[in-house]
Amino acid sequence: MTLRPCRTSLSALLCVYTSCLTSAGLFAADDPLPSWNDGTAKSAILNFVEATTTEGSPDFVPPAERIAVFDNDGTLWAEQPLYFQFLFALDRVKALAPEHPEWKEKEPFASLLKGETKAALAEGEKAILEIVMATHAGLSTDEFDQAVRDWLATARHPTTRRPYTEMVYQPMLEVLTYLRANDYKTFIVSGGGVEFMRVFAEKTYGVPPEQVVGSSIKTKFEIRDGTPVLVRLPEVDFIDDKAGKPVGINSHIGRRPIAAFGNSDGDLQMLQWTAAGPGKRFCLFVHHTDAKREWAYDRKSIVGQLDKGLDEAKAKGWTVVDMKADWKTIFPAE
Amino acid sequence: MTLRPCRTSLSALLCVYTSCLTSAGLFAADDPLPSWNDGTAKSAILNFVEATTTEGSPDFVPPAERIAVFDNDGTLWAEQPLYFQFLFALDRVKALAPEHPEWKEKEPFASLLKGETKAALAEGEKAILEIVMATHAGLSTDEFDQAVRDWLATARHPTTRRPYTEMVYQPMLEVLTYLRANDYKTFIVSGGGVEFMRVFAEKTYGVPPEQVVGSSIKTKFEIRDGTPVLVRLPEVDFIDDKAGKPVGINSHIGRRPIAAFGNSDGDLQMLQWTAAGPGKRFCLFVHHTDAKREWAYDRKSIVGQLDKGLDEAKAKGWTVVDMKADWKTIFPAE
Repeated sequence: MTLRPCRTSLSALLCVYTSCLTSAGLFAADDPLPSWNDGTAKSAILNFVEATTTEGSPDFVPPAERIAVFDNDGTLWAEQPLYFQFLFALDRVKALAPEHPEWKEKEPFASLLKGETKAALAEGEKAILEIVMATHAGLSTDEFDQAVRDWLATARHPTTRRPYTEMVYQPMLEVLTYLRANDYKTFIVSGGGVEFMRVFAEKTYGVPPEQVVGSSIKTKFEIRDGTPVLVRLPEVDFIDDKAGKPVGINSHIGRRPIAAFGNSDGDLQMLQWTAAGPGKRFCLFVHHTDAKREWAYDRKSIVGQLDKGLDEAKAKGWTVVDMKADWKTIFPAE
Repeated sequence: MTLRPCRTSLSALLCVYTSCLTSAGLFAADDPLPSWNDGTAKSAILNFVEATTTEGSPDFVPPAERIAVFDNDGTLWAEQPLYFQFLFALDRVKALAPEHPEWKEKEPFASLLKGETKAALAEGEKAILEIVMATHAGLSTDEFDQAVRDWLATARHPTTRRPYTEMVYQPMLEVLTYLRANDYKTFIVSGGGVEFMRVFAEKTYGVPPEQVVGSSIKTKFEIRDGTPVLVRLPEVDFIDDKAGKPVGINSHIGRRPIAAFGNSDGDLQMLQWTAAGPGKRFCLFVHHTDAKREWAYDRKSIVGQLDKGLDEAKAKGWTVVDMKADWKTIFPAE
């Protein structure tokens, strides 16, 4: 933005206004995506929202159908060095260890308690499932909510030392706000646990619990001493990942989104499902390209692998965010 | 409402205004529940909404937490002589019969096709499940949506000959509208099929698809000739009835409702779950007491049995609507 020399304060104001309009196209203060550098990704978002919300536009979509879905891990908040919910589970193993003396002899817990995470995970999925069930089941929904709340209040990210709820992407927070300001309903559709995410999604992202879709374990309604409770059972209910995402969207939202934001192959089917509907559609992958300010990983990564998705995005002309080039800032200011 | 004699048209207006305010307490046109007779049920609804939405009231609830849940069959629309979705299934058996010559010899279809519904259902739950799966699975979600849409457009209720979407309770439509006007988010939580209800819930009740919780069968994401589809599988996913209702509420809404409306023992756990939260709560059963204008049934009915619920409502002081006494009209005008 450049300013012309002006004499009076009133004409100065008008002058600033004019120069803004002519040089940058709009006031900086009016830019709904100030943490985005100008470029194809930012333009694509702005153009899509304008096209779908301008009455009379051939691509106009009525407000009720403005459904946008967002993956969480790697799309709204970071996911390195490991998915944050898994770090919660590891912390919880330590916290629960005094109640489980048998864990000293029992894998994967014995290795975890010795700090040997890699050895603990040697059995892969089986070990992960055991850790998740031991730390996420057996308590009521209210108790679990409190456990997550307590952890988020005190736990710190291993490398940045920031609270996990500050490890969120400022540019994506702006997209969420921008969409909602344009009468979009924003949903989270994540492989993460639905009851884990709901604890912070409203405050952190402005997404209310009823707009969070995720993986779940089964729960059972019981009356305990006259009080109804929902008990979390050690049994998988639904995995909201890959081909599960369109299933979860259909089950919870019941209509097809018109915009979808992801970052990994786990989101590919969600984007395919979104893209396949009639009318204008928007699909975006966040590509982690910034080893300095965040992490750089894609095709070979265990966490958040983006391989097939990257190819399909190119083939179909979906928007790919180059985190390093497209984002002015990554995380909110401390 | 009584009118005082007035001379001029202006003073007549003022006079009507005054007499309204003094006699009925508010304009008839301002009554949010005009199809309800004055009485304890109507007062209970009005008082609850006023208490929870008046700033400064000790029972004030922030808008985000104003969650109200409604059963569908017997609460928002009728359920006699049989649940309407089951009548849809029976019509669909007839429609699909040409594609299934084997049904002529195979129960429960053979009896159904001969019009012998009672014989067809002799095997109880097993027969019902077979009928539901044969008529609700094996097609894509889009195809099923269209099948329900086509049926609703043409099918007529066996005794009233009205479209099923007109067999809804006018007084309850007013409650839905009244709650939403007071920033309540209204959800359907029903034993009915979620994808069946979503077809008409938005137009009929003003409840969008993402606020419908119901029973479901499993679906599977597939790419067919390059197009992603969700295929409905002949496998039960979730039964949103009785103890399943709090589970469905927790899974879909993720917070506890503060108001719950039902009509049968299938809703009892939903009301218990709602009532057990902190702060002011509202629980209501519609009691079908009007054999003339609708149907009269409760403790012994197979459809919509209300037995334990009636006892618990009395014990806990929940609101019980006496349909015959409390409702001026049952169905919307034709």
